[in-house]
Amino acid sequence: MRFSVSHRDRYARCGRLQLAHGSVDTPAFMPVGTAGAVKTVTPDEVRLSGAQIILGNTFHLGLRPGTEVIETHGGLHRFMGWDGPILTDSGGFQVWSLAADREIHEAGVRFRSPVDGSIVFLGPEESMRIQRALGSDVVMAFDECTAYPASREQASESMLRSLRWARRCRAVSLAPGQVLFGIAQGGMYEDLRVESLAGLEEIGFDGYALGGLSVGEPKAEMARVLETITPRMSADKPRYLMGVGKPEDLLAGVAAGIDMFDCVLPTRNARNGWLYTANGIVRLKNAVHRSATGPVEEGCECPTCGRYSRSYLRHLHSVGEMLGARLCTIHNLYFFQSLMRDIRAAVTQDRLAGFARGFLDRYASGKADVA
Amino acid sequence: MRFSVSHRDRYARCGRLQLAHGSVDTPAFMPVGTAGAVKTVTPDEVRLSGAQIILGNTFHLGLRPGTEVIETHGGLHRFMGWDGPILTDSGGFQVWSLAADREIHEAGVRFRSPVDGSIVFLGPEESMRIQRALGSDVVMAFDECTAYPASREQASESMLRSLRWARRCRAVSLAPGQVLFGIAQGGMYEDLRVESLAGLEEIGFDGYALGGLSVGEPKAEMARVLETITPRMSADKPRYLMGVGKPEDLLAGVAAGIDMFDCVLPTRNARNGWLYTANGIVRLKNAVHRSATGPVEEGCECPTCGRYSRSYLRHLHSVGEMLGARLCTIHNLYFFQSLMRDIRAAVTQDRLAGFARGFLDRYASGKADVA
Repeated sequence: MRFSVSHRDRYARCGRLQLAHGSVDTPAFMPVGTAGAVKTVTPDEVRLSGAQIILGNTFHLGLRPGTEVIETHGGLHRFMGWDGPILTDSGGFQVWSLAADREIHEAGVRFRSPVDGSIVFLGPEESMRIQRALGSDVVMAFDECTAYPASREQASESMLRSLRWARRCRAVSLAPGQVLFGIAQGGMYEDLRVESLAGLEEIGFDGYALGGLSVGEPKAEMARVLETITPRMSADKPRYLMGVGKPEDLLAGVAAGIDMFDCVLPTRNARNGWLYTANGIVRLKNAVHRSATGPVEEGCECPTCGRYSRSYLRHLHSVGEMLGARLCTIHNLYFFQSLMRDIRAAVTQDRLAGFARGFLDRYASGKADVA
Repeated sequence: MRFSVSHRDRYARCGRLQLAHGSVDTPAFMPVGTAGAVKTVTPDEVRLSGAQIILGNTFHLGLRPGTEVIETHGGLHRFMGWDGPILTDSGGFQVWSLAADREIHEAGVRFRSPVDGSIVFLGPEESMRIQRALGSDVVMAFDECTAYPASREQASESMLRSLRWARRCRAVSLAPGQVLFGIAQGGMYEDLRVESLAGLEEIGFDGYALGGLSVGEPKAEMARVLETITPRMSADKPRYLMGVGKPEDLLAGVAAGIDMFDCVLPTRNARNGWLYTANGIVRLKNAVHRSATGPVEEGCECPTCGRYSRSYLRHLHSVGEMLGARLCTIHNLYFFQSLMRDIRAAVTQDRLAGFARGFLDRYASGKADVA
């Protein structure tokens, strides 16, 4: 792995991350391919949106189809037909958000599989074993996502456990070409975050992520943590803000110095008939779109806007045609990647703050859903 | 419209049908685009499968989004982004199969909308009005689908009503370029079928369809009607067997002299994880495909087989990923169009009977689902 920062605009930075399966311009947004597919779309469509790296879920893929099946294909890249970089999460967040009857031990977490109710155990070594089998370019350390709200004591205990788990992850050897990122926890307590980061840096990782944000806390809380902590993260390593987010959060994250993001919003909202545009969100259920023969967004160069009307997409959404979910996903993925391109250009030209103000003014107008 | 038969192999024939939006090689199979989309796929993907004409449903489109919305786009072609020929059915079959509280009057059918429970009226004039608004290349006369089984008296009464409705359909003026096909009914009674055809030919249509087949009757019944009736249909007009069918039914239909078919099987079965191959159906639920790294069908040139394994498709199907339904649909559409190409070639070379025997032997082997 090589990571180079080519330009800085205050705390924001742009650069390039070279991984085993290709390079990624940063700041980068990673579409989420939970179960071996970015929902509804093919790898070609993901690539056409401008995405250079996608995220795969260790938790989901470990349960179904299981590592044996994926290993038979020589890894996740070939299994799903995506030959670019893949980052896999550790499963820690899903254990926290999806699994029932969770028991946290020092060794790892025992829980009930949401697929078949069987008892599953996932700890640092298991997560590394699965991610090694998946063959992802970037492996994430297995962590515990600290709940929100959490007392200082809870947050500290949880952060320290994640740190011990991170050390165990680092001790596992990965496949050639794979790199490992550590995840800083500590809830909304800045000193705990600093302690977590220091501990991770002492162990030494190829990149550092902020976990446990965007978990229900007020926006101001996340902003405070981001602004305080991000500038203290290693300057020469990629910084990844996990599970974020909305366009406004991406702008705030980049401004604070973040290089990588992932979020299900563009894909999930597409399936719910929410389409992102520079003028705010188009909600297809809104009757104003009933006979709208224009595209979702005038001037948008995505394949959906080039060919289909808002009216048609609204119809597909209303009748539950899968094609609608797909066409909307294609637009949203394109929108997010376009935004990242614009953000990178703005950083390169030292005008991120101005770009963000202009973007947010227009985006907040909500005009897209009016006419 | 121009229709020319270029070659005959016993009763089978191949030719070309020239419609307002392009030409169609016959015998042709029309994928079904019920609600303004061939489920899960784009018009480009339909085109790449080899399909030259698709079917749209008057019943569904009339209810949602309604003709006003489609007229705003200048018709169904632009609404859905398919610029090739479209045939629209009349809604008669759907009224019979989908609508509740159906009351059949001489004027038409009053029923409860399956969408919102409101009372809807559909008769010959209403069906023509909707199909004119849709702007399809081929308009189907509004008919009553005779139930199976039906007494001779019921079948006769129903057939005569369809004939009177057909006359009223013919009296409605369509848009320039649109052509109108009549639909022969008469249940399994050959003399009623002959009477129906004679009545339709007296009125005069651009093509003739057989309705009320493949509605639950034994295969031998359909074969008998087909073999007796098809050769009596106008030789210089296209003959369309509605709602058919399985590969074996397509072969039987072509052998009897049919030129056009439509069926939801390739698309619906794809969504259920059934994939057509020359060696029979691959059922993705079958555990033999769990780690199968080969394609659905060796040598198949469809985009799905070129890139994805049976194992991957099985996984997508198991976890309910929409992408799976789509990749399977692409394969099945391709398979059906390939079969039609092979059938046309066999007819042209006077070897349909031999081709059919060879195909059915292999297809019936079921080998595809074994290893």
